[in-house]
Amino acid sequence: MARAIDLNTDAGESFGRWVLVDEGQLFRYVTSANIACGFHAGDPVSIWRSVRTAKSLGVAVGAHPGFPDLMGFGRREMQVSLEELKAYVIYQLGALDSFLRVEGMEMQHVKAHGALYNMAWVREDYARALVEAVHSYNRRLILVAPYGSAMARAAEELGLKVAYEAFIDRGYTPDGRLAPRGTPGALVTDLNKVVERALSIVDRGVVEAVDGRLIEVRAHTLCIHGDSPNAIEIAKAVSSKLREVGVELKPMAKVV
Amino acid sequence: MARAIDLNTDAGESFGRWVLVDEGQLFRYVTSANIACGFHAGDPVSIWRSVRTAKSLGVAVGAHPGFPDLMGFGRREMQVSLEELKAYVIYQLGALDSFLRVEGMEMQHVKAHGALYNMAWVREDYARALVEAVHSYNRRLILVAPYGSAMARAAEELGLKVAYEAFIDRGYTPDGRLAPRGTPGALVTDLNKVVERALSIVDRGVVEAVDGRLIEVRAHTLCIHGDSPNAIEIAKAVSSKLREVGVELKPMAKVV
Amino acid sequence: MARAIDLNTDAGESFGRWVLVDEGQLFRYVTSANIACGFHAGDPVSIWRSVRTAKSLGVAVGAHPGFPDLMGFGRREMQVSLEELKAYVIYQLGALDSFLRVEGMEMQHVKAHGALYNMAWVREDYARALVEAVHSYNRRLILVAPYGSAMARAAEELGLKVAYEAFIDRGYTPDGRLAPRGTPGALVTDLNKVVERALSIVDRGVVEAVDGRLIEVRAHTLCIHGDSPNAIEIAKAVSSKLREVGVELKPMAKVV
Amino acid sequence: MARAIDLNTDAGESFGRWVLVDEGQLFRYVTSANIACGFHAGDPVSIWRSVRTAKSLGVAVGAHPGFPDLMGFGRREMQVSLEELKAYVIYQLGALDSFLRVEGMEMQHVKAHGALYNMAWVREDYARALVEAVHSYNRRLILVAPYGSAMARAAEELGLKVAYEAFIDRGYTPDGRLAPRGTPGALVTDLNKVVERALSIVDRGVVEAVDGRLIEVRAHTLCIHGDSPNAIEIAKAVSSKLREVGVELKPMAKVV
Repeated sequence: MARAIDLNTDAGESFGRWVLVDEGQLFRYVTSANIACGFHAGDPVSIWRSVRTAKSLGVAVGAHPGFPDLMGFGRREMQVSLEELKAYVIYQLGALDSFLRVEGMEMQHVKAHGALYNMAWVREDYARALVEAVHSYNRRLILVAPYGSAMARAAEELGLKVAYEAFIDRGYTPDGRLAPRGTPGALVTDLNKVVERALSIVDRGVVEAVDGRLIEVRAHTLCIHGDSPNAIEIAKAVSSKLREVGVELKPMAKVV
Repeated sequence: MARAIDLNTDAGESFGRWVLVDEGQLFRYVTSANIACGFHAGDPVSIWRSVRTAKSLGVAVGAHPGFPDLMGFGRREMQVSLEELKAYVIYQLGALDSFLRVEGMEMQHVKAHGALYNMAWVREDYARALVEAVHSYNRRLILVAPYGSAMARAAEELGLKVAYEAFIDRGYTPDGRLAPRGTPGALVTDLNKVVERALSIVDRGVVEAVDGRLIEVRAHTLCIHGDSPNAIEIAKAVSSKLREVGVELKPMAKVV
Repeated sequence: MARAIDLNTDAGESFGRWVLVDEGQLFRYVTSANIACGFHAGDPVSIWRSVRTAKSLGVAVGAHPGFPDLMGFGRREMQVSLEELKAYVIYQLGALDSFLRVEGMEMQHVKAHGALYNMAWVREDYARALVEAVHSYNRRLILVAPYGSAMARAAEELGLKVAYEAFIDRGYTPDGRLAPRGTPGALVTDLNKVVERALSIVDRGVVEAVDGRLIEVRAHTLCIHGDSPNAIEIAKAVSSKLREVGVELKPMAKVV
Repeated sequence: MARAIDLNTDAGESFGRWVLVDEGQLFRYVTSANIACGFHAGDPVSIWRSVRTAKSLGVAVGAHPGFPDLMGFGRREMQVSLEELKAYVIYQLGALDSFLRVEGMEMQHVKAHGALYNMAWVREDYARALVEAVHSYNRRLILVAPYGSAMARAAEELGLKVAYEAFIDRGYTPDGRLAPRGTPGALVTDLNKVVERALSIVDRGVVEAVDGRLIEVRAHTLCIHGDSPNAIEIAKAVSSKLREVGVELKPMAKVV
């Protein structure tokens, strides 16, 4: 039974005039923020702002690299070469890191975004390229990845620490993957259900799949989608409930 | 009389399918490369390639940040806020630095690109913002700037080292600025003239302005435009001639 | 005393994941929509969606071309060549027009966006290039422009119809220009004041400038900024009030 | 035996500072140009320039829409929704058409670019979406597609004219598809071989596949890749040879 867990949220996903969420609020309830790096979202001004907000609220920061697809928010699969994939990840790590350096902070982790995350979950070649990129940049970084994923395995082989991630607002298929957006049960929008799933994962290491079956889910960190319409409400409810039942919330570096 | 000088070239200014110059050739004749960082030119793959080419040929690397204007190659003035300007510069320094880190190299310098360079030459506010960005990121970096420019002054006030830059393929106005592209004498394309101007600057610290008058030009580094049609030829001729007359060519860090 | 007027709103200014306003609501209260064309905002999917919403609600559609500056939402001045300016406008007109063609609609007008609008307000060369671009594409299009602006004059010289535009949520300087964003009185956020200004312009052709003086403002169309936090509320209140006092609201093509 | 054929070339694939080919030369030897529309290549200035060059040299113009992937030159598969695909194609047709309209020209055809072409070759859903987009925009347009491809079938079902295209500088697999770039025989670079393949296709309707087998290839138009290093030389040699043996070269509208 896990009694300490990290709550991570995708962040920095504004772009210029477009703002997704009030991070001054959202960051009060999470312990780690995955900040977009400019490819699927995030312009330098908004990225820097997210970094400063994280700093002022004591939230640990990681990079959230994605495909170069602003129009699709990095959620569409792209067939890039492994050289391209590595170069894209390294570039984005450095871009975000520049603001951490200026603010006197350390990067804690890397969590791939959207289609890159999903592809590296199952594709060995993408997983390997992603992990090699992270490792070549800074081998002290933690990779956020689902338990049993190709990218978790690749990271462990190369000697990177891994924080297993579970999703409390997304449906799971019976084999432990995410139900694709647009399919029944893919999104869990009921607040009580989301809280309940968080508790179930933290307390018992299981969650109900879309077919009602209980499946095992190991987690060091739970994901709060920063672009959900009620992201702040979810983060608040989940963090309150977890604290209430005695679970300690802390950045993943202190959990893994 | 300067007997040591740096030859710098703009580099990494390809983008995806589009390639500007064969850097495997060009880099044989220069001592420093200003590598584009993705805003006016440069995608991660081409940037990384430029970094590796520089590494293999012993060329020192600096960042070449520009405005976010791929369509205009960063050559068009943009009225950005000072917060935007600083964030853009910091982001680009980090993005390039990621590949240097992966390759075990150190960033030597920063040279603003195109319209950003020209604006920070005269505008105190842009100069100050540019210099503060560089300084906040890494105060050991050298700023490349024209002698007497607003950005040179701002750098010296803040304690950054400055490498004075002169242009051998661009015409100067009598007051020591660059003649705007498109005006008579703005581009010096004759190879012999370019070599002669390099010699004049290095040996006597003067160059002929567009009106024929001699003006004083102090230089630690001479610029070879990497996107000139005959960039390689120019670099080769200039470096040969300078060596021939006993001028030592070395990276600006050893000249300033 | 004008008894018929158009209410126009900037529209289609979403981009991929980022949505600015619910146009299904907003379009109920306006008579013309200026739809972004992909340069400062608008991806093809969101543009098409805006066109269909306009069609279903009987709103007349115009193009809202801007600078190629997604990161700055087209609000930053750029020094482009006149050839570039014309090409950018023509490209954007065609891009939007494609969806009108598919939906069996006609383009009614063109309204430049942000910095392009502001620059063409006063710069003769930009005004001329903008107008020539519109005229070369379709000389039946109406240009939306402030009374007395360089672009209104250029349009009238070339024989384009002009719809004079007034701003009810932006402060005017005593000489009839917009107070720059960020200066005192630049934004009028109080709903009652906005309604009152609309009435004043429609009924008496005057509005209070930032220094309290009354200035003359001629208008065929009033602008509702689609990206204001309370755009829908403003549009609803203004349209109700105008109808209440007997002003007829109709697309600018029937007003000019 | 075909005694009339079209030679088409991809064109307008410059972007800002980056130029791929001298179209003033290339267009002397082709009869149709597929002009990029800004998504995988082409900025408004370069697109307009290509249109004017085509006009002055009597070359028929078509649209060359691609995926929104400037960094990958539209050569990487992207999993977009069918709504996105249609919106992207319509937008690009209109964008190019704007310059044809200004120049008093008519669009002749549409040829998808890169990964979009390859995916619509085999994927029924993409083929259908592409064809529906073209059809909804202008049903008089000709679709360029390989004989036997999903997109050719979809076009014929919907009543669009199809110009079958063959490739003379790319290797074919025994089942009549293109050998993927990077595999043996994928690129035919020998000039004599390219000319010979052109003749074989035009005269006998067959070409040698990568395994040496002869396969049937029906063609109304032959593709000259505008971004080949020796595109102009190829176009010149092929057009000379075809004319020499009595084949008439004319725009595809007069061939299909």
